[in-house]
Amino acid sequence: MKFRVVLSILGAVIFFVGASMLIPMAVGLYFADGSASSLGLSALISMMLGAGLFLTLPRKRRGYDLGLKDGFGIVGFSWFGSALVGALPFMISGAIPEFHHAFFEAASGLTTTGSSILTDIEVVPKGILFWRSFTHWLGGMGIIVLSVAILPYLGLGGMQLYKAESPGPTKDKLRPRIQQTAKLLWGVYILITVACFALLMLAGMDWFDSACHTFGTVATGGFSTYNQSLGYFREPAIHYIVIFFMFLCGISFSLHYRALSGQPSAYTRPAELKFYVFLILACTLIIFWSRSDQHLSNEQNFRESLFQVVSIMTTTGYGTADFETWLPIAQIVLLGLMFVGGCAGSTGGGLKVVRVLLLLRYLKVLLNQQLHPSGVFVIKMDNQIVKREVIQNILGLFMVFVFLHMISSVLLTFWGVDIMTAITATLSCISNIGPGLGDVGPTKNFATIPEPGIWVLSTCMIMGRLEIFSVLILFLPQTWRR
Amino acid sequence: MKFRVVLSILGAVIFFVGASMLIPMAVGLYFADGSASSLGLSALISMMLGAGLFLTLPRKRRGYDLGLKDGFGIVGFSWFGSALVGALPFMISGAIPEFHHAFFEAASGLTTTGSSILTDIEVVPKGILFWRSFTHWLGGMGIIVLSVAILPYLGLGGMQLYKAESPGPTKDKLRPRIQQTAKLLWGVYILITVACFALLMLAGMDWFDSACHTFGTVATGGFSTYNQSLGYFREPAIHYIVIFFMFLCGISFSLHYRALSGQPSAYTRPAELKFYVFLILACTLIIFWSRSDQHLSNEQNFRESLFQVVSIMTTTGYGTADFETWLPIAQIVLLGLMFVGGCAGSTGGGLKVVRVLLLLRYLKVLLNQQLHPSGVFVIKMDNQIVKREVIQNILGLFMVFVFLHMISSVLLTFWGVDIMTAITATLSCISNIGPGLGDVGPTKNFATIPEPGIWVLSTCMIMGRLEIFSVLILFLPQTWRR
Repeated sequence: MKFRVVLSILGAVIFFVGASMLIPMAVGLYFADGSASSLGLSALISMMLGAGLFLTLPRKRRGYDLGLKDGFGIVGFSWFGSALVGALPFMISGAIPEFHHAFFEAASGLTTTGSSILTDIEVVPKGILFWRSFTHWLGGMGIIVLSVAILPYLGLGGMQLYKAESPGPTKDKLRPRIQQTAKLLWGVYILITVACFALLMLAGMDWFDSACHTFGTVATGGFSTYNQSLGYFREPAIHYIVIFFMFLCGISFSLHYRALSGQPSAYTRPAELKFYVFLILACTLIIFWSRSDQHLSNEQNFRESLFQVVSIMTTTGYGTADFETWLPIAQIVLLGLMFVGGCAGSTGGGLKVVRVLLLLRYLKVLLNQQLHPSGVFVIKMDNQIVKREVIQNILGLFMVFVFLHMISSVLLTFWGVDIMTAITATLSCISNIGPGLGDVGPTKNFATIPEPGIWVLSTCMIMGRLEIFSVLILFLPQTWRR
Repeated sequence: MKFRVVLSILGAVIFFVGASMLIPMAVGLYFADGSASSLGLSALISMMLGAGLFLTLPRKRRGYDLGLKDGFGIVGFSWFGSALVGALPFMISGAIPEFHHAFFEAASGLTTTGSSILTDIEVVPKGILFWRSFTHWLGGMGIIVLSVAILPYLGLGGMQLYKAESPGPTKDKLRPRIQQTAKLLWGVYILITVACFALLMLAGMDWFDSACHTFGTVATGGFSTYNQSLGYFREPAIHYIVIFFMFLCGISFSLHYRALSGQPSAYTRPAELKFYVFLILACTLIIFWSRSDQHLSNEQNFRESLFQVVSIMTTTGYGTADFETWLPIAQIVLLGLMFVGGCAGSTGGGLKVVRVLLLLRYLKVLLNQQLHPSGVFVIKMDNQIVKREVIQNILGLFMVFVFLHMISSVLLTFWGVDIMTAITATLSCISNIGPGLGDVGPTKNFATIPEPGIWVLSTCMIMGRLEIFSVLILFLPQTWRR
């Protein structure tokens, strides 16, 4: 590993994260809630640390030829490093004094998980809350995708950062396209963010709540500024707006780009999108039906069911109702959705809809092969033949997900967490959702998890998020073009 | 599908299951507990039904050329049909009056699961209890393996029955070997059964309890004749004998055959066996450690921990202690073992040790490939290269296991079962273990599961068992020899 180069790029990322703290600092100044100084100090420390690391870089004119290992190093270090400096405002302001809790909260924000250790959100200064939600937005489209748009100007080749996560096309051919792609994706992201913010303000939220909940929605994060999450707001319009934008951000952003550049028909083609819509509707109906004998209006039942299904499936984690009081059938359907996650190329986490769809198609092939052992079967997706290696990689990833999940659950129980909490907390963190069941249910938080468990879960969030990013690149049409 | 041929073979299997009821009938007569007449009547009905089906067979001199579909049909029908007639004694004697409960109990016996719906085992007549345990023994080595040893004399080629479950070697070359193999395996099975029976009697059990617990042990079933399972017996010697034979029967029977035919060194070679022993020791130590602050002697703690680990890992399901009162770490380790199961070619269920080992080796290859995308990696097992297709099939099976597990859990919660019970009951039934957690914990039973759930779980048991059988043939060295 070219350690000095890796460290210097890490420095650039950390500098950028630190600089972005100046925005919540401005919010803190506006509300005069006393958080501006802690945010400013955090920004200063982070920027100095980042600049220091960056300046250790050996000077070179044309950029560095990064290897695969460098790429892995940069990606891993950047996420852990960002969470580390992202924790500073929480600790310095005293909102979250313990280091492991502050790191967990920052990692949860950046990975768009939305799990929290805060027992009372509403006492936290607004500047800090803004930072908390803003980390969602930074992590949503990806620190690395962002670095692709920015780092080349710093004289560095960011291409290997992708290679670290998506083996495949060669470096030379893709280099210009990937930078362009990263910028376009961030452009679409900003556009959707502005639209969501505007609509939430129109629906009656103030600008602060609009901004924070927009970050949580479009990044499919889940941090709210209220203890009751979105249940605090009673206006159905707000719920429907959030449902719509969660739904939108659970879809591939390259599809949105295509639609915005004059091809709205792009939405009609992908099998993944159809399956995504099908799963949302089917699960909403099951949950709607299971709650139909409760004394709810049909509209409220439908809205709450749809909200929860979209929130869990897109791995956002917002809530308008406490689904732990729902029937077991409703809970297990939500648990299943936690596994699935959003579409590839979206800001959502989980295994991804397209992978589940390919696994189901592979299942059919497996069964056919039992009856016709010498038959040759191909798996198609959107009229293209999917290579066996792709299927094998998905099966491998599926296995890794399950193994990671088992090992983390075992570790959590090792430190005394009960089984249901351990299993759902792990699943929720790996898939970057937010709430689980048991002690980490929708109306509770992660404060009761012992310190080593907090570290395990923080690692789970980052591991879940990084895999997911790799898919973002892997499923971009540009990546596949010759 | 050659339906008449399939039906006639099914008839032969059912006839055989009916005839085997004459043994518990003799036990019933000996104890004069009133069960002999129900057992005799059940035997008569089953044998007449079987003979009737068998005689519909079109006459032919040289055996029938069964296709793959016929093989699947025979295997599937035989297991459901056997469970169906196996349920007769329970219903006719009134011990288990409801049909779905009786079917569940018979399926649980034949598949060597050992889950029960009986709330009080000790009031059931001894003849019926003997039949209940005897179904374990019949199912343990396999109705189909048995049929290979017997059916050829009936003028039928049993070869396709394997093909239905294990694609691979061609028919002509293996035919004589497979019949021979089936007989040898049953020979080893009977030998181990006799040894276990004799040792249990020496340790102080009466012949009836010895026989029933021997069936439950060597078949890795788990039905006991007491409500407290093996906790009823206080003699440590009995526990150690059962541990030893569960351990033995969780190992491939072809290894035992080799060892018995003068190659005891056969035990030293397979990586699977080493991993099996390693897992048992490691998990026992973890559980031993987790219980060390309870007021138990080290010997009792060790014995109970080892017993439970071996019982769960070999998918037997006997208990000497209530592991639901143990710490979460002990419970989740046992849950993990439920997934793993015994060695390939044993009477145990689950995913199988060798598969888990291959998955772990594949995981290593996956990680290596991330760093060296153009590298060529091979997976070896016992000095032989494992083909990519084998790995892909294992990954596929792994996925099918997880999917089946999810769907069945969702169905159970649909009928109102709570989540923890649903998840562990399903896992326990698919892996043919017996107890789960929650409402189906080690000291409880499946009587509280609603009727549709009982059918789901019965199907899970048979599906789990059939996959497992396929492995039995697949991993026999004879199957792979040219």
